[in-house]
This record gives sequence, C-alpha cells and structure tokens, in this order.
Amino acid sequence: MAKLKPRTLSGFMELLPEKQAQFEKMAELLRKAYSLYGFTPLDTPIIEASEVLLAKAGGETEKQIYRFTKGDSDLSLRFDLTVPLAKYVALHYGELTFPFRRFQIGKVYRGERAQRGRFREFYQADIDVIGDGKLDIANEAEIPAIIYQTFTSLGLERFQIRVNNRKILNGFYAMLGLTEKSGDIMRTVDKLDKIGADKVKELLTDEEMGLTDEQAQEILDFIAIKGSQGEVLAALEGYRGRSEVFDAGLDELTTVVKYLSAFGVPEDKFAVDLTIARGLDYYTGTVYETAMVDHPEIGSICSGGRYDNLAEYYTDKQLPGVGISIGLTRLFYILEEQGYLNEALNTAPADVLVLPMTDDLAPAIAFATALRWEGVRTQLYTEQKKFKQKMSYADKLNVPFVAILGEDEIAKGAVSVKDMAAGEQATLPADEAVKRVLSGLDRGREEKPIREPGK
Amino acid sequence: MAKLKPRTLSGFMELLPEKQAQFEKMAELLRKAYSLYGFTPLDTPIIEASEVLLAKAGGETEKQIYRFTKGDSDLSLRFDLTVPLAKYVALHYGELTFPFRRFQIGKVYRGERAQRGRFREFYQADIDVIGDGKLDIANEAEIPAIIYQTFTSLGLERFQIRVNNRKILNGFYAMLGLTEKSGDIMRTVDKLDKIGADKVKELLTDEEMGLTDEQAQEILDFIAIKGSQGEVLAALEGYRGRSEVFDAGLDELTTVVKYLSAFGVPEDKFAVDLTIARGLDYYTGTVYETAMVDHPEIGSICSGGRYDNLAEYYTDKQLPGVGISIGLTRLFYILEEQGYLNEALNTAPADVLVLPMTDDLAPAIAFATALRWEGVRTQLYTEQKKFKQKMSYADKLNVPFVAILGEDEIAKGAVSVKDMAAGEQATLPADEAVKRVLSGLDRGREEKPIREPGK
Repeated sequence: MAKLKPRTLSGFMELLPEKQAQFEKMAELLRKAYSLYGFTPLDTPIIEASEVLLAKAGGETEKQIYRFTKGDSDLSLRFDLTVPLAKYVALHYGELTFPFRRFQIGKVYRGERAQRGRFREFYQADIDVIGDGKLDIANEAEIPAIIYQTFTSLGLERFQIRVNNRKILNGFYAMLGLTEKSGDIMRTVDKLDKIGADKVKELLTDEEMGLTDEQAQEILDFIAIKGSQGEVLAALEGYRGRSEVFDAGLDELTTVVKYLSAFGVPEDKFAVDLTIARGLDYYTGTVYETAMVDHPEIGSICSGGRYDNLAEYYTDKQLPGVGISIGLTRLFYILEEQGYLNEALNTAPADVLVLPMTDDLAPAIAFATALRWEGVRTQLYTEQKKFKQKMSYADKLNVPFVAILGEDEIAKGAVSVKDMAAGEQATLPADEAVKRVLSGLDRGREEKPIREPGK
Repeated sequence: MAKLKPRTLSGFMELLPEKQAQFEKMAELLRKAYSLYGFTPLDTPIIEASEVLLAKAGGETEKQIYRFTKGDSDLSLRFDLTVPLAKYVALHYGELTFPFRRFQIGKVYRGERAQRGRFREFYQADIDVIGDGKLDIANEAEIPAIIYQTFTSLGLERFQIRVNNRKILNGFYAMLGLTEKSGDIMRTVDKLDKIGADKVKELLTDEEMGLTDEQAQEILDFIAIKGSQGEVLAALEGYRGRSEVFDAGLDELTTVVKYLSAFGVPEDKFAVDLTIARGLDYYTGTVYETAMVDHPEIGSICSGGRYDNLAEYYTDKQLPGVGISIGLTRLFYILEEQGYLNEALNTAPADVLVLPMTDDLAPAIAFATALRWEGVRTQLYTEQKKFKQKMSYADKLNVPFVAILGEDEIAKGAVSVKDMAAGEQATLPADEAVKRVLSGLDRGREEKPIREPGK
C-alpha cells in the first residue's frame, strides 16, 4: 500500500510525551491556582456562528480568523476566550450569579504568518470577574495576588507584575489638553524602550503630531516617574486636583498598592509602571503586565485589565469586569527555549514499572492492582523480552521504581523494589514494598514544572 | 447601539457553572484513572491537513467532516482521536518508547444531523497501548480492569463490561464455510435484541443471504451461549480443534478471563458476550463494550478493542494496539438526563466566601490569603451590598463556608465562620478558623460526580 507522509501543520504545537507531561503539570497548577481564588471552570465551543464571534472584530484580527461554511452555516473558530465569555454571559445572564468569576483554559486559533515561536493554535488561560452594573475596586487589587501565586506555584521566581491605570493616563493627557491625540501619543511613548527618549520627543513634536516642546517634555517627565511604590504614588500626588479622571485613577491605584501586602505579594514582585497602556479602546482602569526580569525581550507573559463593558455588542446590561490572560503555549515555548523547564520533574508515565518474571502473571498483576488502589501510577510490562531490555525500557521512560516478581519473590510473597535514581534494590514483603514506593514518591512531589536556570 | 442576539450553535454543549464543575470533576477523575495504569497524556492539534486526516476516511464519516481551506491549505477538524494518534506515532516513531501508552481527552467534530443528545463537538476520552511489531495479550487482559476502576472512581455502580474476541467470531464462521458472508451475517445477528431470533433466522436463510437452515441454527445456538465465565468458556471449548483462528481466539479470551480477579475486577462486572463484533475491518482480537445495566437502550458507554495495524496508511511499521474510548460529552448528557449526577458533589466555585464588614479590607484579605496558602478555595466578596444580599450570594453559589470579619471579630483577631449546610456559626481565632474550615471540607471530599439514582 502506498504510504502517505504523516505531518503536523506548521504553527501547531505537538509535544513529545515528556514535554507534554511538563505542559500538563503547568495546566494543572494553573487550574489549581485559579480555583484558589474562587474562579469556576468554564468551557465554551471552539466553533461559533461567525456573526456572533465577529460582532466586534475587525482589521488585523478578522483577517486571521479561521472562517468557513458547513452546510448553510457561516462558522468561525474562536480567536480568544473573551468574546466567547461575552457571548456566554449575555446569553446566560439570568442564570448566572454576579460577580461571576470564571477561568477558562482552552485552545484558540489565529492564522498568523508562520514563524518560530508563533502559533496558529494555542492555549490561553484566562480569568475574569464580571460584575452586574458595578464591580468593586478590590477585585482589581486582587489580580496581582493571583498572578503572584500562579507563577510562584509554577516555580518561576524572577518575574515582576507591572501595573498602571488607564484613568491616570487619560486624566494626564486631559490635563495637557491632548485627549484627542492621546492614542497617537501612547503609541509613540510605547516605543520608548526601543528608540529612546530623544527620538520619542522628536516624534511627538514633529509636524504630524504637533506637540509643543513643553508638552513633550511634560510627557517624558511623567512616564519617567519611577521608584518604590510609595515614591511613585507621592510623585503622582503632585498632579492631583487638575483632572477628576486622573484623581479617580490615582485613588484606584492607591487602593491596589495598599492591599498588596495583605494579599501576600512581596514588594519586589510589583511595580507601578506608567508606560503600560495595553491597547486603546477596551481597558478603562487598572492594567497589568508581567515581565520575566531576565528576559525583557519576551514582553509580557500575563496581561489584562479592567474594562467597563464586557458584552456591549450583545446586551444593554452594563457588565464591567477585570481579567488577565496567559498565552500558555507561547509561554511554554519560551520556557523550554530559555532553559526554564525543570528536568527534575517526574514526567514518567508511571511511578512503578512492574516486571513479571514468570509465565503466570497473576502475582505481578495482583501487586500492580494493590499499587493502583493506593493511588500509585503503575505500569505492567508484559512483553516477551530479556530482563536487560525490560530494564532499558524502564530507563528510557525514566520510571522512578521498578518492581520485580520472579519465582523467588513469589515463593515468599515478596517483591524486589529497585529505586532507579538511588540504584538501590531491596526484596520486601508485598505490603512493605507498597509503603516503600509511597514514601519514595513523596520525595519528588514538590518539584515544580519551572526552575530558574542556574539553580 | 444595535445588539446582536447571542447564541450557541446547536449540537454544541455549553454548560452552566454547576454542571461544568461536575463535568470537570469527571474529566479530572478520568485523567487520574488513566494515569494509574501508566498512560501518558497526549495532546494533538484539532486541525490537521485534510490529506493526512482523511487518508483512511470515506463514506459517512467523510461527509460529516468539518473541512475548509485557509490560504492554500486544505484543512480538516479531527473527527476522532485515533487517526491523530496514528499520525503521531508514525511521525514520531523514532522518538517514542514502545509499548507506547497514551491517553487523550479532547474535543472532536462531526457535522451530524442535529438532534437531542447528538453533538457536533464532543469530548472523547481515549486510551491506547501501541506495540512495535508485537503486543502481548496481557495488555488486552488489563483493559477490563481500567474500565472497572474508571467507572468505579466516577461513582457508577450498575455497569457491566462485555467482552468478545474477533478471532472467535472469524474462526467460527470459517468452520461453517461462511467467511465471505461473515460481515453480512454479523450485521444481521447484531439486530437480535431488536427483532428476535426467529426474524434473524428468517433473514439469514432468505434468498439474498442464502444460508441453510442448519447453518442458521448453528449461528443462533452459538450466539445464545450464555452463563458464567466458566460456563461460556466450557461451551466454547466444544468448538476447539475445527479452526486455528478460533482456537487462538479462545486462548486469548481464556487469558483475559483468567487474570480478571488478579486485576480486581468483580465477577458481576464482567461478561463474555458473543454477540459483540464492533465493526468489521479494524479490530482483530478482544473487543469491549460497557453497558449501563439499567439502561440497555443507551448502548455502550465505553468501547474498543485490539487492532493489528494502527498506522498502515502512514508507515510500513507494524503497530498493533489495543484501546478504548469514552464519548464523554454524550455520557455526561445521558447521566444528567437519567438523574445520575450526584447533587451532593461540591460544585461551588469556592469553599469559603470571605465577607469583610469594614471599610478597611486588610484583615479580611489577610484571612483569605491565609486560607489560600493552605489550599482552600477562597473568594473575597467586596461588593457594596447589604449583609442579607451577601449571604444570599453565598447561598446561590452553594458555598460550604462563609467567613465574616466585622469590627468585633477584627478587634479580637477572630473570624466568625458559618457552616452553611449545618447552619452553625462560631467565632474563632483566625488560625483556628482555618482549621475548622479544613476539617469541614474533608467531609465532602469523598463525593463522586455520579450517584446511582435512588441511592
């Protein structure tokens, strides 16, 4: 029969078993971290009616959509988890309890140009809190705690949560009489890291933008405000009283900073960063980014913010919310590429490989059954191979323990347990063998999927 | 602004939070059960190149495929998890260790006619063991144990695993000289439950099928073999020596039955059922179905079997395997409809709702933080509402505990903890309050997502 060459589409991540186990561990810890903050899991279809999904889309996003017809239906694959959430909340409004807190970890699709590290199918891991009409600022203050606990539980250490407030930015540009130009200005200011302050000033004062030297300098001075949380807040107090919007934003930012320590967020994991804007239309209050301190070139690995109208395309209800998103597939790709995946994590498919050495498999099967009902992940290896090949199989899978049941062991109701890492082997009564394995596994349980390189 | 009516496509399951929590619990327990047997998690793209995905497809399946073009690419959504597995194993053959044991829980797509209980997007939960060239019969013997432990861990009690062997069927029809007609015969015999033995005999002996009365009676006698495992095997021994294929199949079935008790499968959960065939081309050895004893009309809720060539469309390597699949979305739908979902399962998004009663939220936040670092799922409720409305929110979410921090509590470093089920409230020092919650939660942890109706 002629064979068809198997292949996986470019831009689609497909991992080998060890790496997949790492990825699954990360997803499991994300589910756990999000659950700790009272978010309920949600799952929505990957396919939606195009008119529903594209109610808001346009421009670059719309071009990337996987859109097709099936029968009479115009269908699209979701390109994020926010639009499906908006649809869900508008559709099920009467059946939900607000504030509605949900997390969703799922695949989304964007037909981007294929290139290294860009994915067309990728996981997003989102949380959102949706209020009905109102939503208290405390919800915005809680987000840094969630980001902190999430990345800490994954094992990442050198990261920083950076926060700004859109009202502060909008209020500041209003003070300068530059509200209408604020979008263009923020886009220019966003280039600061890349092109430097002089070049930014040049762009701000060129014919097209038309700012005065004084205005440009005020902007540069403003975004240069840096320091400890207290220093930044004190500097911002200097602008108070000139714009109601600014003052409201400063109050919100002050509240967010105030509760950080009660939320358990260490001071070095958090910074106020006045250069963060996160797009122009959607966010209306606190905005968040998360940087890997040793890899600024990667950009934010967890971002989001406060918005006033989740579902305005579907409903008249005012549904304000705050949310963050992790691009999990991209993050995993970066972590692997930069050497952050913890090789000490147990990624073997089983904790014990049971090797029967007799024709009658019953004693080996009974021992495997006992391990499984104790919650130990156990594989029976029953292929007709030489002992050496069986041990080589255990080595390749990186299984922590091998349990051998030969004639001698079976005659005394015993099992020979080999600790593969320590290289130690002991012949024990079956019930003690189970205990030996259980206590051995406890050692490895605290390993996290991420480990800082060089640690 | 004109509003667009939000809707979810028909044939796509979208659950409300409580039901979603039930579904997630089932998926979590499936991952756990599969992991106990040494299966590694796998994830493959939902989109594949059409030529790859449809290498084997044809007929009814092909018509149901979601197929479309994006740019120059002819793409399709996967319609099962087996073809992607075949592609994966053929593509990564050199990087895998065999036997390769993987589980995958993922969405698949079939554009079926929409009707109640039929889904176009649904989860399959599959396991497969793939050998390189050979695969020992013990792998087939292990499958009933996996099915048994899986459904038991979910809470299902009245189910039966039914097993047959394709070699027994093929050998039997070869004895009668009916190999060429065996496909048509099996399709007819499959109707036994619906149309009765007389009608089956009539169809077998009609002009089109052309069997003699004697042949038809032999077939009916054969499939009528019933009884305990020992009785069925004894009856089958009566046919031994007439067909090598039959004898090989009987040896395999005998091995499967022999190890059941060592695998911990109770006798009443297992039956040999000679009417099971599971399609005609793919399976070559043991085949499995799982019935809900009280709902025969539902058909099999977990099926599969042994096959000889997983990936013959992609590779010359002989890759025999054995696998089973649960149609999780359909199963969940049935369980809900038939009243099998356990309402005692804790489906609340949080275990504790913390209610701050003062303007300064810091003490309440600190208490919530302490709970979270102890692994307790905790929600802070900070909206400006009356106490009654806050308690009503806790009721609606079905949160097990409410923790109240008012002026009085804060002054003494205490928390008032209300056990919502018991209706009891106690004011305790903060650290004791954490312990009270932890011990209270232990009570509910053993609940399973499924409970037999009437129990």
